[in-house]
Amino acid sequence: VRETTFIAGDWGTTSLRLALCRGTKILDRITGPGVATQLAAPQANFRSLTKIWAAEYGPLPALLCGMVGARIGWVETPYLACPAEPQSLRRAAIHFTHEGATVSIVPGLSCNNPLGAPDVMRGEETQIFGAVALSPALASGRHLLVLPGTHTKWAIVENGTVQSFLSAMTGEIFALLRDHSTLSKAGGNPQTRAADGFRKGLARLKSMPAGAVVHLLFEVRSRQLLEAVPEREAIEYLSGLLIGADVAAALQWFGAAATVVVIGEPALAARYNDALTAFGAESCNIDAADASLAGLRVIFGDVLGGEN
Amino acid sequence: VRETTFIAGDWGTTSLRLALCRGTKILDRITGPGVATQLAAPQANFRSLTKIWAAEYGPLPALLCGMVGARIGWVETPYLACPAEPQSLRRAAIHFTHEGATVSIVPGLSCNNPLGAPDVMRGEETQIFGAVALSPALASGRHLLVLPGTHTKWAIVENGTVQSFLSAMTGEIFALLRDHSTLSKAGGNPQTRAADGFRKGLARLKSMPAGAVVHLLFEVRSRQLLEAVPEREAIEYLSGLLIGADVAAALQWFGAAATVVVIGEPALAARYNDALTAFGAESCNIDAADASLAGLRVIFGDVLGGEN
Repeated sequence: VRETTFIAGDWGTTSLRLALCRGTKILDRITGPGVATQLAAPQANFRSLTKIWAAEYGPLPALLCGMVGARIGWVETPYLACPAEPQSLRRAAIHFTHEGATVSIVPGLSCNNPLGAPDVMRGEETQIFGAVALSPALASGRHLLVLPGTHTKWAIVENGTVQSFLSAMTGEIFALLRDHSTLSKAGGNPQTRAADGFRKGLARLKSMPAGAVVHLLFEVRSRQLLEAVPEREAIEYLSGLLIGADVAAALQWFGAAATVVVIGEPALAARYNDALTAFGAESCNIDAADASLAGLRVIFGDVLGGEN
Repeated sequence: VRETTFIAGDWGTTSLRLALCRGTKILDRITGPGVATQLAAPQANFRSLTKIWAAEYGPLPALLCGMVGARIGWVETPYLACPAEPQSLRRAAIHFTHEGATVSIVPGLSCNNPLGAPDVMRGEETQIFGAVALSPALASGRHLLVLPGTHTKWAIVENGTVQSFLSAMTGEIFALLRDHSTLSKAGGNPQTRAADGFRKGLARLKSMPAGAVVHLLFEVRSRQLLEAVPEREAIEYLSGLLIGADVAAALQWFGAAATVVVIGEPALAARYNDALTAFGAESCNIDAADASLAGLRVIFGDVLGGEN
């Protein structure tokens, strides 16, 4: 059996990660700008990033997920409503020809979230199905997964199907407050180590009743002014408050879960592990990049003539 | 009795409001940049803004409050710890000579807030004592006041003394999310009227358990994507969620109050009136600019040879 050579990519808001794959092997990797940060049109970016591969292998099919399918992406791919499984994503994918090869874009998912609001994701659905493929225990029963990021997603997977999910702006709010607010301009010493600011912020959030986070944020500033907390420790404290508030409320909405599956890049996943532990939940981790590739293989397995 | 002519000013982070006063009369007003937005040094800004008054009246004493006394202001004025009354602010004020006249800066206040954290204010203390002067009923008994703004302050005044206060970053978070986040870039029609987005956001926040706000913010975006909510309505909805979360939690910390006193500019005060009503609290309003002037008169009454 001749294995297909293809490009697999997670093209998000702020970055593009492409892998050149043959079967389950990764031959090469390349990164580029996200759909919101790129200066050129998506097709021009894609062409210039992949031309070295095209020169060697000729036209290559590309499987993409993420914001590349959003209105601000390459070709808009409508959201698919939950419950969703890999086969339904496969059927709803959009395919078009670019430089003599087929580009396939996975749709995002929509749902009515546990708080009764419409909700959306793009890219995380692929990571979720990849995680299920990488951890067969997730294929049956009910599981709570969290995908930390700019917009953290909490998802319920039941018997391998995404039932619903909930978004939190945790990462975006953290970045806005860190980079653009008065919280980090209080004159704290920027050189000092962060020490255990994250743990302190987490413990502080946990010690307070639900809903306190809106009145705890300002102390990230006042502790620099009055208690000489160094700036970097204050920013870590902010991270602890925000991730703590996200985790505390999510565990309230979704109820107790045996083990929460964290799909993320390792440093951020570790913060969610700590917060989940603080609120009494066990967790295990799956790398987000591994999950993306595994998910694209699951969704497009038949196209690739692979194991799925 | 010859009444003193003087300059009274609230010099905040983003704007400077100066009034030329004689006794209780306001002869003229002028506005300028705040301490964080000015390009020139504070003394140069102050000189150029007031030179028309100096030309007519000669050197004039100036009474200032706000961020002008912060590390990033004109002359740093250390925080005074609560409980505080006008006389203690008067004693802790800093005075210096500028262009042949005395400039006096009111110190800010610090406290251990109701959530057990250090907290600070600069400028609001002057408005609070001005409000007490303008509403004699506030001079005795215990009162809850709220001063909405970039950093909203909730304060307890007991028998005319500021006992403690609590800061919320409500205004700053709203501005960051409105201007710099993905919430307002979802492609909603920017021309449509805001309709009753604020009321809807407030009702939505109120319908949920405490702590839900971190998971409600993303729906400001998803409702634009999936329910065609216009951008301006979505931003009003965001305002309702944030002010609702601020008010709901504050009423929880401070307990029921007979009538909450809102000191603010009228449009923002009205939002807090609506939110307070939604959570079962009555409120009345005092204009922030009036309160600032009245507060400076109360604090420096003896200097001015006035009625205090």
